[in-house]
Formats: sequence, structure tokens, C-alpha cells
Amino acid sequence: MANTIFGSLLSPFVQTVALTLYEKGQEFESVVSDYKSAEYKATLNPFGKVPSFKDQDITLYESKAIARYIANKYEGQGTPLFGTTPHETALAEQWLEIHSHHFLAPLNVIGEELRKKSTDPNFDFTVMDTALAAQGKTLDVYEARLSESKYLAGDHYTLADLVHLPIFFILTVVLDEERRKIITNRPHLNAWFEDMKSRPAWKKVEQPSSSYTNNY
Amino acid sequence: MANTIFGSLLSPFVQTVALTLYEKGQEFESVVSDYKSAEYKATLNPFGKVPSFKDQDITLYESKAIARYIANKYEGQGTPLFGTTPHETALAEQWLEIHSHHFLAPLNVIGEELRKKSTDPNFDFTVMDTALAAQGKTLDVYEARLSESKYLAGDHYTLADLVHLPIFFILTVVLDEERRKIITNRPHLNAWFEDMKSRPAWKKVEQPSSSYTNNY
Repeated sequence: MANTIFGSLLSPFVQTVALTLYEKGQEFESVVSDYKSAEYKATLNPFGKVPSFKDQDITLYESKAIARYIANKYEGQGTPLFGTTPHETALAEQWLEIHSHHFLAPLNVIGEELRKKSTDPNFDFTVMDTALAAQGKTLDVYEARLSESKYLAGDHYTLADLVHLPIFFILTVVLDEERRKIITNRPHLNAWFEDMKSRPAWKKVEQPSSSYTNNY
Repeated sequence: MANTIFGSLLSPFVQTVALTLYEKGQEFESVVSDYKSAEYKATLNPFGKVPSFKDQDITLYESKAIARYIANKYEGQGTPLFGTTPHETALAEQWLEIHSHHFLAPLNVIGEELRKKSTDPNFDFTVMDTALAAQGKTLDVYEARLSESKYLAGDHYTLADLVHLPIFFILTVVLDEERRKIITNRPHLNAWFEDMKSRPAWKKVEQPSSSYTNNY
């Protein structure tokens, strides 16, 4: 098969690549391998992370780079993922960078705290709540943007929206109801998330146990 | 003038945008404003960072997004910055992501330590040296790549190379000779850096006091 994704489909970054392929109407093969092994590092990703990706004579890693490759290769098929004008493309690029540098980085702290919480009956929420408060300020910028346009880059769903979906989904699953208000209390952000969740491509990614059985 | 960069040309991220414009043979206006002011945040970048950028009816922030916009807009002029084949473009995208997620993030620690060192006569190098050792492992991946191709994406200089240049330059200026070996001891990496420094576009960025006088 042309497209092979290496990495568990439970990883949000692997899901990003799967989502992109589904938006383009493409099938793929999914392979879970030991990403810390010397062989994986030598052939698929020297940094020992998922996902990695193969398509005929090219091997790529870094989920956004893979998603861009797919969006370019299947430009005329499925959902256009770079917007429909140079202005929208430029804003899609801007929000892809905001995802990396403002949205994603602080989430490492929250993820780390959630892992501690899962094994500590006397977990102290101070660090997590400080990180969530900081994340809230970033999400205020998203809320302002989404109050003036339906999607981050403009009127159309792009790669900039897509890369946020797997992580937002995890947040709504792992945070308790009170802390989940970081999303639900921001009406435009919440509506954007609900809209993205309703896409057929996400439905396939959300149910890996049924969709992917044949791929393992 | 069409292209206006907001932010001091001493910032490596502002330099990234200036470099991209020079590689495309474009002039620009440079404006230094108070990026922490409410007005800057309301009109140029809600996150209060440099650079921001204006070109006719578009305002953009995030240096890589601006650089991509410029590379796309002037695609047929000056240096082609996305490579010459879909394969090279895909690898340029991959290395742009590696710059963000593996190269740049740990440098924040090194930058923070260098600031402490500048005011502390009894500075303890432990944290900085641990961060530099970790950075060295990342640079081993670069060295391996640059031992098999002249530039990160292949035979041609692309945006993926360009975004590294201002930061590498700062490292060679601020690190002492022993610590600078993180670059100089890796022969292919060092040759790549020397090659990039010799580009006419960099010569203009390296000498802001003479080149930019008329813009302030």
C-alpha cells in the first residue's frame, strides 16, 4: 500500500496523520513498532518518536510535515487543507505555528501532571491549575479569532484546525468537568471543537477499535 | 512600501524574516515598536512577540509563517526556498519542524543560563552544560544528515536551512571557545554553517548598523 503510518493510533500525533489521509479520501496501512529501538531510529526517525511515515520512495517524520506532504500530494482530492486563497493559506500557516509554539508546549506540563495524578491519591493540583490558567490565556486568543471567523484561517477548515482536534479531544476526556470549562466556557472555541468532531474523518479516527482492526 | 517588519533586527526571529526577503531580492521597511503594548497586541500580534509583518492587506506573525508567505509570494524570484522537487519540499518541511521541536526548544534553557551568567560572577555551568550535551545529541542527527547531503532538504538551500542561520550565529558569538565546539567539532555541520554565513543575504543581516540605518 502507498501510505504506511508507523505508530499507535492512540497517539494524537499519529491521529493527525490519519485524519489528514481520511480528509483526502486515502487508505493507509498502520504499523506499530518499537519506536525506541535502534532499528526504528536508524530507518524511520532518528529522534525515536511517532509517527513516521512511508510513501513509495519517501520516509518522513514530524506529524505536521507528514500532514503537509499529504495535503500537497492530494491537493485536488477531498478537503482542500490549505484554504482557498493566498490570504487563507498564510493564516493557516500562522495558526499551524501558533499550535506548535503557544498551544502545544504548555500542554506538556499538563500531561505530566495528569500522569502523576493517575498514581497519586494525594495529588496536588497547584502546578496543573497554574498551567491550565496560562493555557486559558492562549485560548482567549483562539476564542477572539473564532468569534470573527468560523475556522482559524477563515471560512474553510484547514490543516491548522485539523492539528488541534486530537489534542482537544484528549483534553475533554482526561480533564474533570470543572477543569474542562477551559474549553466549554469559551462558546466559539467550543462550537468549533464540536463542529470538528462531527466530521466523518474524525469519526473514523475516534473509533480505532472498529476502523483499524484489519490494519494490525 | 509593501513589506514592513515589526521588531528589532537584532532578534534572530526578525532576522529570519529579513533573510527571507533578501533571498527573494525584496526591500522592506523595518519598524521597532513596543511589542508588549496593548496597541501592538491588538493590531500586530496578540501574543506580544516579534516579529509581526504587514504586506498590503495582510498582517501576519510567527516568523516561519511569515517566511513561508514570502517564499510563496515570490516563488519565481530569487532563491527557490522550498526545494526543486516534491521530495525536497517534503524534507524541507520536515526539517522546519525539527527546528521547532528538537533544535529550538532546548535552546531556551541555554539562553536563560547565558542571561544568568552575564550578571553572576560565580555562575555554575552545570545546567547549561547539561542542556548543551542534550543539544549535542540533536546536532548529531544534523551532522549525520549533512554528511550525506549538502543542505538539510537535499542539494539546495531552502527555508529549512535559512531558519537555523540566525540562531547558529548567536551561539557562535555567545559561547566560549570550548563550548562552541558543539558546532566546530562536527565537520559537516560546521561547513554548512560557514557556507550559509557566506551568502550575500546573510552579509546584509549581519551588518544591521550599516544596512538598516535609513529604516529607523
